[in-house]
Amino acid sequence: MTSSPFAPSARSAVAPFEVMDVLATVARMRAEGREVISLCAGEPSQGAPSAVHAAAARIHTEARPLGYTPALGTAPLRAAIAGHYGRWYGLDVDPTEVAVTTGSSGGFVLAFLAAFDHGDRVALARPGYPAYRNILAGLGCEVVDIATGPVERYQPTVAQLEAAHAQAPLAGLVLASPANPTGTMVDRGELTAIAAWCSAHGVRLVSDEIYHGVTYADGPDAKGVSAREVDEHAIVVSSFSKYWGMTGWRLGWLLVPQDLRAAVDALAGNIALCPPAGAQEAAVAAFTEESYEQGEAARQDFARAREVLLERAAELGWGAAAPADGAFYYWAELGDRLAGFADAREYAAALLEATGVAVTPGGDFDPVVGSRCVRLSLAAGPDAINEALDRIIAWQGSRA
Amino acid sequence: MTSSPFAPSARSAVAPFEVMDVLATVARMRAEGREVISLCAGEPSQGAPSAVHAAAARIHTEARPLGYTPALGTAPLRAAIAGHYGRWYGLDVDPTEVAVTTGSSGGFVLAFLAAFDHGDRVALARPGYPAYRNILAGLGCEVVDIATGPVERYQPTVAQLEAAHAQAPLAGLVLASPANPTGTMVDRGELTAIAAWCSAHGVRLVSDEIYHGVTYADGPDAKGVSAREVDEHAIVVSSFSKYWGMTGWRLGWLLVPQDLRAAVDALAGNIALCPPAGAQEAAVAAFTEESYEQGEAARQDFARAREVLLERAAELGWGAAAPADGAFYYWAELGDRLAGFADAREYAAALLEATGVAVTPGGDFDPVVGSRCVRLSLAAGPDAINEALDRIIAWQGSRA
Repeated sequence: MTSSPFAPSARSAVAPFEVMDVLATVARMRAEGREVISLCAGEPSQGAPSAVHAAAARIHTEARPLGYTPALGTAPLRAAIAGHYGRWYGLDVDPTEVAVTTGSSGGFVLAFLAAFDHGDRVALARPGYPAYRNILAGLGCEVVDIATGPVERYQPTVAQLEAAHAQAPLAGLVLASPANPTGTMVDRGELTAIAAWCSAHGVRLVSDEIYHGVTYADGPDAKGVSAREVDEHAIVVSSFSKYWGMTGWRLGWLLVPQDLRAAVDALAGNIALCPPAGAQEAAVAAFTEESYEQGEAARQDFARAREVLLERAAELGWGAAAPADGAFYYWAELGDRLAGFADAREYAAALLEATGVAVTPGGDFDPVVGSRCVRLSLAAGPDAINEALDRIIAWQGSRA
Repeated sequence: MTSSPFAPSARSAVAPFEVMDVLATVARMRAEGREVISLCAGEPSQGAPSAVHAAAARIHTEARPLGYTPALGTAPLRAAIAGHYGRWYGLDVDPTEVAVTTGSSGGFVLAFLAAFDHGDRVALARPGYPAYRNILAGLGCEVVDIATGPVERYQPTVAQLEAAHAQAPLAGLVLASPANPTGTMVDRGELTAIAAWCSAHGVRLVSDEIYHGVTYADGPDAKGVSAREVDEHAIVVSSFSKYWGMTGWRLGWLLVPQDLRAAVDALAGNIALCPPAGAQEAAVAAFTEESYEQGEAARQDFARAREVLLERAAELGWGAAAPADGAFYYWAELGDRLAGFADAREYAAALLEATGVAVTPGGDFDPVVGSRCVRLSLAAGPDAINEALDRIIAWQGSRA
């Protein structure tokens, strides 16, 4: 219950993101005419595939009224997304499994409401994407942290899940591969083991696959392994934001397991009415050959930036870092370079003021050890990364 | 807690909308080549203002990347919305009061999360828009029905609020003026009295003003009276969907009272990241003279359809009906015309099959007396309304 008249709800007591201070400083510096290299971006810079923009341009040039679509998305887009699972995973997905959502954010809210009740315990890897934690808490779920680090490759293990479940039963697990902020992935064997454990224990697996395709290994599982391949009860969350560069369009989707279809169907229209109609129509063109080629070109840009960073990472003199299997992030402990600073937030503020290089302090992703970590985004490209590293290394050296 | 492994959540046990069966039948009949007049639409048909489409066409023709915007919306759009309150209400609204949302649906989820906790009691007029009830229940709030009818002009009275609050304290009230499905409005005196009662009792007023401007009276309060004029604690919910005809664009806004700003700010990015970026940029053009003129032209179309309906309503031989002060709906009890049918659902199904006229059965809006009511939408225009009335009257006559 709200404790006093006209107080905000208790559940809205969410900590502001640390990166906001960094972004505000970046804006101020740029307004002052100073040059800044921002490695804070959580989004790619290439923009939507040309065919998607062209389709949207037609809709608006014709000034066609855009009414509500079915709550779970238009039939052509659901069919196109289903077809994508054939192409990338060799899966035969029926369009009725697909629920188009307003970005993956809308997908998470819908999935969590459909799968979990107030008081349900849901496990998350820490570090992780902060909105998981904040949405779940807002919906009254108990967030169960699975502390991960270099030993676990920043992904939860079955042993850790066993231990958490033994304390009190888990209702769910949110797994992200590639993960934000670490970029680490679980391979087919690991995912299969985690999914089997979840199935055996009645724990709903929610698999965040929004960075699939933004990956740097070769082989049959190069795009990432989908939970849809190994777990009939899993909810898959995905998005047009990353591989296709469509963050601002707010379009994502779920693959909904059979036992949750009616629940998702009943909730979707109530909480969102429908995903954006013009974006849905245009996004069908994301599945053309040309659009896939453009996604692949963007991936290669990230790969070059990643190579630059990994080649020079030792020069930074930081501590343990995640291997950045996928996504476009590099997550590292600052180690000895934190000396003289209270935390990563202070380090990031000083770095930005001195060099014009903005990095994301880690507290947003990990409330425990994140204060010693930073996340660097590769979205700025290889040249910007190279220049940023020069500046960071020189600045650190000048302080030593 | 979820009761068994892999069951949907208890909170997802939302009744499917009755109108879905009607819409499915409409689709089937049209696929069979039969002509249907649908009076089920909850959306206008005019589409977005031309200037908004033109702005969107420019964005997509230039293929500009659309990245995340600030979670509460872009500065130009927040400023433009704030300016709208000067034009329509003579209010001096600061852009920081405005939170742009993903449709009013996104606004309701955000407002309810920020203002209400699990277990909080929130009052709603019955009949009312079903998503209020379903979102609140999903978020763990207790929905307190205020039964309204012709005597109360389908709007809650202070006496009813007093009675509900005496049973157990209310935390909030959702008030809609013009309301869906009834179209009734509260005037300045009524709104002031309700707001004063809410303020005195620590009850948060959430004022749904999405149909403002789609109104049929003259005078200084013709657009509707905003809760922002009379209650510093009220949350105002509004949208580009109705007056501006932009349903599928998924763009709305809140006016957030001072004491909820931090809560809304903290929650918004977590639950939605940001509203659609292209739509935000284009929607600034909704506030040009030309766009207002187009909104006004659409209103006049609804007004003509409303006149046709109200002039001929007596011929229907139905029971009590709401006065349709605003919005584009006509809500009525079927009265004696329900004879021979189990409920309005059965009446609507038989009407559709016999005449090709689709109306919305009332159960979605009122789980108690809605089974005797129907909602007719004016969005089909005056000629379609006239033809639909001919058919309904003839069909009813043939059964008598």
